[in-house]
Amino acid sequence: MARKVEEEEYEEDEGESIERVFEGQEVPDWKEQVTARALAVSALLGFMFSVIVMKLNLTTGIIPSLNVSAGLIGFFLLHSWTRLLDKAGIPGVKPFTRQENTVVQTCVVACSGIAFSGGFGSYMFGMSERISEQSGEVRDEDSIKNPSLGWMIGFLFIVSFLGLFSVVPLRKACTSHHSTDLYSQHFDFTNIMIIDYKLIYPSGTATAHLINSFHTPQGAKLAKLQVKTLGKFFAMSFSWGFFQWFYTGGKDCGFSSFPTLGLEARRQKFYFDFSATYLGVGMICPYLVNLSVLLGGIISWGIMWPIIEHKKGDWYPADLKPSSLRGIVGYRVFISISLILGDGLYNFLKVLTRTMTALVAQVRGMMSGPTLPISEAGGDLTPAETFDDQRRTELFMKDQIPNTLALSAYVITAVISVITVPRIFHQLRWYHVATSYVIAPVLAFCNAYGCGLTDWSLATTYGKLAIFLVGAWAGASNGSIIAGLAACGVMIGIVSTASDLTQDFKTGYMTLASPRSMFVSQVIGTAMGCVIAPSVFWLFYKAFGDIGTPGSEYPSPNALVYRNMAILGVQGLGSLPKHCLDLCIIFFVGAIVVNLARDLAGPNIAQFIPLPMAMAIPFYLGPYFGIDMCIGSLIRFVWDHVDGARAKAFAPPVASGLICGDGIWTLPQSVLALAGVRPPICMKFLPRATNIQVEAFIKSLPPPPG
Amino acid sequence: MARKVEEEEYEEDEGESIERVFEGQEVPDWKEQVTARALAVSALLGFMFSVIVMKLNLTTGIIPSLNVSAGLIGFFLLHSWTRLLDKAGIPGVKPFTRQENTVVQTCVVACSGIAFSGGFGSYMFGMSERISEQSGEVRDEDSIKNPSLGWMIGFLFIVSFLGLFSVVPLRKACTSHHSTDLYSQHFDFTNIMIIDYKLIYPSGTATAHLINSFHTPQGAKLAKLQVKTLGKFFAMSFSWGFFQWFYTGGKDCGFSSFPTLGLEARRQKFYFDFSATYLGVGMICPYLVNLSVLLGGIISWGIMWPIIEHKKGDWYPADLKPSSLRGIVGYRVFISISLILGDGLYNFLKVLTRTMTALVAQVRGMMSGPTLPISEAGGDLTPAETFDDQRRTELFMKDQIPNTLALSAYVITAVISVITVPRIFHQLRWYHVATSYVIAPVLAFCNAYGCGLTDWSLATTYGKLAIFLVGAWAGASNGSIIAGLAACGVMIGIVSTASDLTQDFKTGYMTLASPRSMFVSQVIGTAMGCVIAPSVFWLFYKAFGDIGTPGSEYPSPNALVYRNMAILGVQGLGSLPKHCLDLCIIFFVGAIVVNLARDLAGPNIAQFIPLPMAMAIPFYLGPYFGIDMCIGSLIRFVWDHVDGARAKAFAPPVASGLICGDGIWTLPQSVLALAGVRPPICMKFLPRATNIQVEAFIKSLPPPPG
Repeated sequence: MARKVEEEEYEEDEGESIERVFEGQEVPDWKEQVTARALAVSALLGFMFSVIVMKLNLTTGIIPSLNVSAGLIGFFLLHSWTRLLDKAGIPGVKPFTRQENTVVQTCVVACSGIAFSGGFGSYMFGMSERISEQSGEVRDEDSIKNPSLGWMIGFLFIVSFLGLFSVVPLRKACTSHHSTDLYSQHFDFTNIMIIDYKLIYPSGTATAHLINSFHTPQGAKLAKLQVKTLGKFFAMSFSWGFFQWFYTGGKDCGFSSFPTLGLEARRQKFYFDFSATYLGVGMICPYLVNLSVLLGGIISWGIMWPIIEHKKGDWYPADLKPSSLRGIVGYRVFISISLILGDGLYNFLKVLTRTMTALVAQVRGMMSGPTLPISEAGGDLTPAETFDDQRRTELFMKDQIPNTLALSAYVITAVISVITVPRIFHQLRWYHVATSYVIAPVLAFCNAYGCGLTDWSLATTYGKLAIFLVGAWAGASNGSIIAGLAACGVMIGIVSTASDLTQDFKTGYMTLASPRSMFVSQVIGTAMGCVIAPSVFWLFYKAFGDIGTPGSEYPSPNALVYRNMAILGVQGLGSLPKHCLDLCIIFFVGAIVVNLARDLAGPNIAQFIPLPMAMAIPFYLGPYFGIDMCIGSLIRFVWDHVDGARAKAFAPPVASGLICGDGIWTLPQSVLALAGVRPPICMKFLPRATNIQVEAFIKSLPPPPG
Repeated sequence: MARKVEEEEYEEDEGESIERVFEGQEVPDWKEQVTARALAVSALLGFMFSVIVMKLNLTTGIIPSLNVSAGLIGFFLLHSWTRLLDKAGIPGVKPFTRQENTVVQTCVVACSGIAFSGGFGSYMFGMSERISEQSGEVRDEDSIKNPSLGWMIGFLFIVSFLGLFSVVPLRKACTSHHSTDLYSQHFDFTNIMIIDYKLIYPSGTATAHLINSFHTPQGAKLAKLQVKTLGKFFAMSFSWGFFQWFYTGGKDCGFSSFPTLGLEARRQKFYFDFSATYLGVGMICPYLVNLSVLLGGIISWGIMWPIIEHKKGDWYPADLKPSSLRGIVGYRVFISISLILGDGLYNFLKVLTRTMTALVAQVRGMMSGPTLPISEAGGDLTPAETFDDQRRTELFMKDQIPNTLALSAYVITAVISVITVPRIFHQLRWYHVATSYVIAPVLAFCNAYGCGLTDWSLATTYGKLAIFLVGAWAGASNGSIIAGLAACGVMIGIVSTASDLTQDFKTGYMTLASPRSMFVSQVIGTAMGCVIAPSVFWLFYKAFGDIGTPGSEYPSPNALVYRNMAILGVQGLGSLPKHCLDLCIIFFVGAIVVNLARDLAGPNIAQFIPLPMAMAIPFYLGPYFGIDMCIGSLIRFVWDHVDGARAKAFAPPVASGLICGDGIWTLPQSVLALAGVRPPICMKFLPRATNIQVEAFIKSLPPPPG
């Protein structure tokens, strides 16, 4: 009766606090968290991951998230290293702490993130002559900028740090509801997301659980059980990913294309895609988030898009490419962005207003009311201030990055950037760049907020918006294509970094890593990435002469897509499909109204009002992951009602195991893809009638050799 | 903490005996088990199931087992009926007992079984002119026997009862090891299988659990938990079957074609087919049975068949139809039958020897040693005589069918049959029929034995043997095709009835139904079937003029297959592929040697010697269900080791739930098939290379209308 024993052990344990388990361990000073060995390992992993991301950029254009892998491999390398030194009898080896682990993880993410946000498979490469030739446009020297190591490194250095600094500023202004003397005044980007709004950041939370589980001290019974649970679900999720892989030998093959609710529903992206990640995400996200995502999916893919598709030929031309922004994709992109902007702007302004009020109040020696945390509105995970919350917040607030530093760094980098970027791209005017830097923090805020709710970063969508807006602004003048693409680069750089790093800060928060050490490691990681990523690209570009040519080994499919968008963007708002702008305005206003309603209604009603941000993400991507999340949520709901105490203690490790196992699997999967090992089988789903024809066709094929 | 509560309840409960729960209930006299209402319901269900089976006969030729459905629907009809009368205030309504439920179930199975064993989709219809025209043979009046209501009913009446009587005889001769005075002397077919060999009969056991669960008295805590568990897994298994259905819109589509171990392995039938039934079967079968099945699969499909297929063109002609007995299928059919015959004959003779010894010993006033129960050799489920065993055996022995009655009935029916069958089929000689009746009980024994081990009835395989042997014996003379097909009918009738009814007796044993009431209900059911089945066929035959025509709504695909086998059989042993006979002899002898080894070795060694009967079944069918069973077995193994007490109490309900849920699903599935509702999607598995071609082909197809 092993289960019995476990249960008793589990009940002997007093609390369910992770930080109580770690209470005996001293948290090292932030300078000791950023060790030389950690940076060495980060550089190694950063390079490795950059190669992987780059190759995927240039082949399929689909990049998995490598957060979890960074945490895991970082652990194994450093753990092995310290144990090796220890066994070799070398004295003075400092123990390997979870904070150091987090530092490695965040540094690697910052570094390899640039391989993605640098746009080597999209906007940056889209400027080149080779892609221009494929787009069918008239050749124009002004619309071409071929890659070259020099300007790429320069551009990245200028642009990438802005994202980093945009995460930090706007601090020391608002009084939070954590109004103890110790950390009375915080108001920066990260703090709002993590401490005030208590956003989940599912991947970040899962990585933190993973790192905590690696470093759990001996002797903690419940913790050991939780670690075991995490390990079990990690293994299951990993194996499931591995098993699924075998059946994905082609487009639309495998479990992720399973028409669980029928082929008709699948066409509108309604299906359960057997994703362990989003099951896990659903288990730890508040119910309100999960239901909002599903609701958004139903409104968009269930109702609006089918109606609009019905107007094909009327509202938009019938003969477009499927990916054209002039057609149905245009509605998806622009309406979802409107919704996000409406919500983001509302929250941004609300926070700003509060800041001002607080400032005024402070001047008058008064305190303002607390902001409403999302999770309270969701009525779920953190009903009261737990010991974990207290301890984490305390440490998170201790080592804040000086606000003046971050703000002045942002301004200085922005100024440098405004001056130098137009020198790199003469097609771009200084005011384009300057305007971008004024808007960017708002969008970065939106993206980090959405990512915290649903784990999706929509950086490329914001990039598309920038292509469109700046392209239209630059007008049909020569070189507006390059202007659009460059603006896209600026925007993706900032927005994607913002969500990645806030995600990492969540991990840091939960592992008691100092924000300062995190920040330093992010700066170092970003710097490494600005050199490593273009170098790796340059290596590919020189080694394989036909990169970007369709049908070659590295077709870089997205580069042409981005260039085509830029060509469209030049035509401005007039190129939007019919009624698209009207709908955008309606949804933008709608998002603000819903937010107002949430704030004006009491918490009892507010908990039933959906979150526009969470609703917007499936507008673009489709409702499938919302279905995963709702199933995860349902499991959690049932579990909570069947055995609440156990659910509370074990749902986070289960969810983290599911998310991390799936996450780690992406690493071997990528390695297999790089090695040219492709899955052998295609699991396909055909309507019965088509299947009859296909069967006849297969019979007509010559038998395979051998 | 609901689980906690359940566990406590479960531990308060003293034993794990089902019969203790029912101890308070009086077992009605056997005559009260066969009530008029039970027979009325049976007739209704018998007719309904006959229609279903007939339509499947004539469309796909694949007939699911309807045992469980019979038990379930019988329960609902009678339960509703008695409650209705009760509520209407009608006095003197006898309570509905589980024995009565079993009687309904066995009667329905006996009745609808004839719709299958009557060969309306196979041998019987294969005699007709319509099928003869399709086989490409020269038209010959002697080789044709068109269906007609009269002779079909007559033939079935003569043949079907023999199977029934063959199950019962050979009794009152051997002293069993259950040597209490109460039931000292039993030696009939059913008793050997159920009481001495303690065979599992997975479907029968599962149905019994289902019926018991329906009738569990109020207040029994553990029993209630078990019923709840059964219900939960029943629902899961049923839903799983339903879900799977949607993806089976074509040949080789759906989860049952999932190449879980890769396409190459799938080609040799090595795969896990997601069958809830065989997972459940694996959970209640002894480990030895499961492993024997897997071993048999590996030897045949893993080693032998690939080698033989390699000799294609040498050992057998390369240009045969895939289903030809002259090719690889011949090896599969005849070698598996040899193995089965070797094992069956050994056991039959062993039992016969024991009988004789016991007779002699009895004369001398001595007792013989016990036979070795399979389950003891398997080292598993019933280590000691439990309370359940004692109670069940006691009741099972009380109401035995008079041996003389059964034996004389068999002989009389056989004599009538020997005289009349050659009158129906003038191509058949009386000695063909007589010989069949001498051999049949041995084959019936083999089939009931194999079915008890693995749940598979290989009745059609024995039928094929009969076609071949009698066809060859009748020689190339006129009409030997009809002779072969008629002999096939005789054989299938006996062999299939034997396994069905022994399966039912297992259910009866576990629900304390009287063997006598079971027997009576089987006689009645068989009689009903002999009239209902041909009438239903006649209805179809007259209503749809094109039955049996390829491409029509009712193509009856198996009829032509059987006729072709008969045409082949005429050519005798010479038509067998090369070395097939040698291999048959080797495996026949091998089966005897392995059995000898099992008997001569001590139980410690015997528990590791595989069972040839269990090995033989995958020789023909493929190892896939063995893989299912071994996975079920593995689950049980782990469960036993993690929490033995819980596993012992809950594994049977879990397994029964899995088996019954899947079993019941076949009913709506059949109804859907009859209604012409076909599954909408085909889940297909293609090699990557083929998929590329198929993708191109699908693109070239015109878009679907609408």
